[in-house]
Amino acid sequence: MKHIIFVACIGLSAFSINAQQALWGKSNIISPEVNSDNTVTFRLQAANAKEVRILGDWMPWRGWEPGSALMTNNNDTLWTYTSEVLSSDLHGYSFEVDGMRCTDPNNVYLIRDVASVTNVFITGGSPGDLYKVNNVPHGTVARRWYDSPGNQMTRRITIYTPPGYENSNEKYPVLYLLHGMGGDEEAWIALGRTAQILDNLIAMGKASPMIVVMPNGNVSQEAAPGESSLGYYKPTMTLPNTMDGKMEETFMDIINFIEHNYRVKADKAYRAIAGLSMGGFHSLHISRIYPDTFDYVGLFSAAIKPFGKVTSEIYDNIEATLKTQKDNSYKLYWIGMGETDFLYKTGEEYRTLLDKIGMKYSYAETEGGHTWSNWRYYLSEFVPLLFK
Amino acid sequence: MKHIIFVACIGLSAFSINAQQALWGKSNIISPEVNSDNTVTFRLQAANAKEVRILGDWMPWRGWEPGSALMTNNNDTLWTYTSEVLSSDLHGYSFEVDGMRCTDPNNVYLIRDVASVTNVFITGGSPGDLYKVNNVPHGTVARRWYDSPGNQMTRRITIYTPPGYENSNEKYPVLYLLHGMGGDEEAWIALGRTAQILDNLIAMGKASPMIVVMPNGNVSQEAAPGESSLGYYKPTMTLPNTMDGKMEETFMDIINFIEHNYRVKADKAYRAIAGLSMGGFHSLHISRIYPDTFDYVGLFSAAIKPFGKVTSEIYDNIEATLKTQKDNSYKLYWIGMGETDFLYKTGEEYRTLLDKIGMKYSYAETEGGHTWSNWRYYLSEFVPLLFK
Repeated sequence: MKHIIFVACIGLSAFSINAQQALWGKSNIISPEVNSDNTVTFRLQAANAKEVRILGDWMPWRGWEPGSALMTNNNDTLWTYTSEVLSSDLHGYSFEVDGMRCTDPNNVYLIRDVASVTNVFITGGSPGDLYKVNNVPHGTVARRWYDSPGNQMTRRITIYTPPGYENSNEKYPVLYLLHGMGGDEEAWIALGRTAQILDNLIAMGKASPMIVVMPNGNVSQEAAPGESSLGYYKPTMTLPNTMDGKMEETFMDIINFIEHNYRVKADKAYRAIAGLSMGGFHSLHISRIYPDTFDYVGLFSAAIKPFGKVTSEIYDNIEATLKTQKDNSYKLYWIGMGETDFLYKTGEEYRTLLDKIGMKYSYAETEGGHTWSNWRYYLSEFVPLLFK
Repeated sequence: MKHIIFVACIGLSAFSINAQQALWGKSNIISPEVNSDNTVTFRLQAANAKEVRILGDWMPWRGWEPGSALMTNNNDTLWTYTSEVLSSDLHGYSFEVDGMRCTDPNNVYLIRDVASVTNVFITGGSPGDLYKVNNVPHGTVARRWYDSPGNQMTRRITIYTPPGYENSNEKYPVLYLLHGMGGDEEAWIALGRTAQILDNLIAMGKASPMIVVMPNGNVSQEAAPGESSLGYYKPTMTLPNTMDGKMEETFMDIINFIEHNYRVKADKAYRAIAGLSMGGFHSLHISRIYPDTFDYVGLFSAAIKPFGKVTSEIYDNIEATLKTQKDNSYKLYWIGMGETDFLYKTGEEYRTLLDKIGMKYSYAETEGGHTWSNWRYYLSEFVPLLFK
């Protein structure tokens, strides 16, 4: 009876063409092309353009805009540009066509950073290979909602569980990993490449299998933009209540949720907290006001002080509470800072304070500034030191 | 000792400006703006453009390209367009500036469909409200990897567990939900809005709490583009081994994984399988070759026949195996098809075959064709009928 079913003979090509309704502007152009020497070739079809530029995060920055370079078109409609040899990293770029910023229509890989979306690619080597999905066992990434009585809301949270977690009875250590201003529970998993870094370091035997908890550090927010009942709105950098003590005060809601819902070693020796910029600020203060909770603390390009008028008593008695944290002992207090970071000076002053009170820390100073390039690298350096 | 820490007084604005390094092309333009009557206003800054068009999936399609409309600029650099009243849905759009396709730089919400990325927005009402994140309890969405001995690889899979799953001892029914050609384990969760549809229908009491399993139906692939060790490559519509019997033959790897890793009711009465286009094809054949496994089957704009030369015996004896499926009994065989779908005719012939052998089915015919608008709607209609 096959003939009844198969009577209308639509060939594969017809099926493909019709099913491609959604494939707007399909083209065979490959862009970017990462060449074997880590130069990268970009291509853009722009028939009527007079000037096409590429803006890349590897070019010298001017204020908060990346540098750019002219693309060339050799008398046809295809504009091309081949970069210098790039550092091994995850890189972002945009095009600018006759002054208008736009994404690369031939690259489907885009990541949002606060209110901007840029195309990305990865150049191999070290550390870039750590940011790639490699042929190793993979952990699970879950987006869940937890109850925060302290904030009187349920809140979205991203959780990485290592390979093997679901098929063992073992208990695991936990790293709490916090984003910066304008970020959210998507920041570390997307731009930060946390799942790839953990998968790869665990497979290499360089990191202990651990759970990584990536909460939303903006306590006025239930979830990342587009993931709450606020719908699709334009994200902004500054939100209320990000550095006013509320995140620190309600952090135990997160630890309670994790320790009641996952097989974890609920013990100081198996808890780490780290964060970038505002998340470093949160990590500093959370580890200090709960001074017997974390054996591992990581401050990545950390802000030290709150901004604006703050009434919370959390930021009083900093030196005394740090001394308590020190007296309770800990295993690692790790500080990373870029040499051109605008927070360099406050970071230096904070280290002076730590020196003064005899609080030991490890310090890594890197090239560059307040960038995801540094934060991915700090995570890659920090994670192998944990829970050993 | 506060003065030591707080000595460098960087105000909030300085922090914001510097921390916005990554905010390329920051602007205060709001686009799109969904107006209260479901007209939508789009805005684009394009100083040097001569002609700016908007392409929207609500405009009449020409082949596999959406229709477009001219935007106007009233003698300044801001181009605007306000649509007619749009149907309630998730909509996609792009701009075309002097002939070059580009995304909306002021809308961070983008979804990939195979090899194209377009901006999206949601218009309220019915069914669009089902596709929004509303203020209801939310399930968990996990990306995991499972072992597929039949394909000799580990493969990525997306799993929705309903609100309350983690905090109960209850066992849950399972819907296996399959994507179409060119799709992957991200298709239903992104364009299909599965998590939102399930959260909302469960909260309204219209759907039973259930687990939804969204596997990758391309058995030559470990994972979606960018999520495997193949790295960042340009996705293509056609992949090998998608409709050659292998997906059907190895489907028990997925059921075994789910039934060993989740608290499920491992029983025909609590298993459903549904899919769109190629996924409808898979659902038809999987439910037929495992004829006592699923009480609920959903074929959304289903392909019926394989394309090209197929040697698998799976596609032999279709009528006989359907009869066995019928004799084993089932509760629901649901078919949805758009009246202008290019697969309409083969679907009609398939229904003729079902009529001939007396195999009962429910049939929903909708406006439009082979579109996500229909597939989201079919899911919303199908899910309330399950496990009752």
